[in-house]
Amino acid sequence: MRNFKMILQYEGTRYQGWQKQDSTDNTIQGKLERLIEKMSLECSSEGQEVTIQVNGSGRTDAGVHAMGQTANFLLDTDWTTEHIMEYINTYLPYDIGVISLTEVPERFHSRLMAKGKTYRYRVINSTLPHVFERRYVYEYPEKLDMELMRQAAELLEGTHDFRAFTSAKKSKKSTIRTIEKIELEQKADEISFTFSGDGFLYHMVRILMGTILEVGTGKRTLENLQKVLADPNAKRDDTGFLVPAKGLMLMEVRY
Amino acid sequence: MRNFKMILQYEGTRYQGWQKQDSTDNTIQGKLERLIEKMSLECSSEGQEVTIQVNGSGRTDAGVHAMGQTANFLLDTDWTTEHIMEYINTYLPYDIGVISLTEVPERFHSRLMAKGKTYRYRVINSTLPHVFERRYVYEYPEKLDMELMRQAAELLEGTHDFRAFTSAKKSKKSTIRTIEKIELEQKADEISFTFSGDGFLYHMVRILMGTILEVGTGKRTLENLQKVLADPNAKRDDTGFLVPAKGLMLMEVRY
Repeated sequence: MRNFKMILQYEGTRYQGWQKQDSTDNTIQGKLERLIEKMSLECSSEGQEVTIQVNGSGRTDAGVHAMGQTANFLLDTDWTTEHIMEYINTYLPYDIGVISLTEVPERFHSRLMAKGKTYRYRVINSTLPHVFERRYVYEYPEKLDMELMRQAAELLEGTHDFRAFTSAKKSKKSTIRTIEKIELEQKADEISFTFSGDGFLYHMVRILMGTILEVGTGKRTLENLQKVLADPNAKRDDTGFLVPAKGLMLMEVRY
Repeated sequence: MRNFKMILQYEGTRYQGWQKQDSTDNTIQGKLERLIEKMSLECSSEGQEVTIQVNGSGRTDAGVHAMGQTANFLLDTDWTTEHIMEYINTYLPYDIGVISLTEVPERFHSRLMAKGKTYRYRVINSTLPHVFERRYVYEYPEKLDMELMRQAAELLEGTHDFRAFTSAKKSKKSTIRTIEKIELEQKADEISFTFSGDGFLYHMVRILMGTILEVGTGKRTLENLQKVLADPNAKRDDTGFLVPAKGLMLMEVRY
């Protein structure tokens, strides 16, 4: 079997997220699998439709965008990577695109081998309309203290148990993660927050963001954040609000 | 009467252009006039709805976008400019926004007093998908010679009779215009063309663009362009194709 690695862009607005669902086909994974299954009718060595599994590096929630999601799939075909990429881009809707498609060793797996990810969250800190950016930013006009937010970001960096920073139900899986860097950048009335880490729990970036914004407005102190981070019994109620999905973009997956 | 000057952003995708039409209300001017007329019920000195005329600096065609369209309207009210801007932005659809609203002398008129305009046209010179830019760019993957296009742009700069570069029917109005500058900028697979001039005829930027692209692909020579520009009998058939509206953005109007 040949193994193909894709780098994908998508605007999440219209979709119910990455992960295929039984009841609906309105997911990015679902769209890709059906399309590649149709393609297999024409290109597979078996000459008939085969079942395709597209492994994403991770799920993105409904409404979240991607500049560099990574996914792979196995297929027996003699088509070139250029031909496959052209076919897929021809039939994908305009809000999903494959920007790179390469052949990789069969053992490569987008999720299992991901070493790190980068997400960006964009906040518009004013009431001014941003017509061209409106689908990709969160309008949050409250007064924000950049210095306090930078300090909050610094507290969150490093290796912590982030169990209070996820909406996932309790499970036996580890909730320890390492955040390498949270970078804040201010340009005019936009503040972008770039999170790089080894992996992120369900809703984790959006809850980290809500927590940082609460520090920025003064609703939460740095001392409180420090306490919650150190408390092995901290719960979801102790952390910040869940910011809207639309401001979030998966930028890159590292291997 | 107080006179208010607005700077507007809009995504033209959903609209039939700037100019109000009788048969439809799906224009940007129409949306603004109806909204400000409704506002006048609450804010006008007369205490009743007044008819509002919103003067744009010029029409933009269906599908063309604006980063800095300018428009003005007259209204007797004691509301502050902040209050008026907030009201308008609250009720405008998300793809239209007022980014500045100031009071100006009564003699100010957006169209009659405009001294110059800048338009930008964005071309994606590859077959790669551009998910986040797709509404604002023209995908034109043919091989383009930047140097030839720069020379074509230079020929077009200056004062010429652009009668062959408009789709407008013949009229007695002058078709002489001055293009101060056409700037080409290449970034990865995107080429942007920035046109600054004292004014542009109907479809003129899009026909200039088509002409420059024809020079870029070698379909048209610089000599031909020079001849057409100098020929007082040149016709629309002698100039380039009309590029799609969606790549065009009105950047700025100067006074």
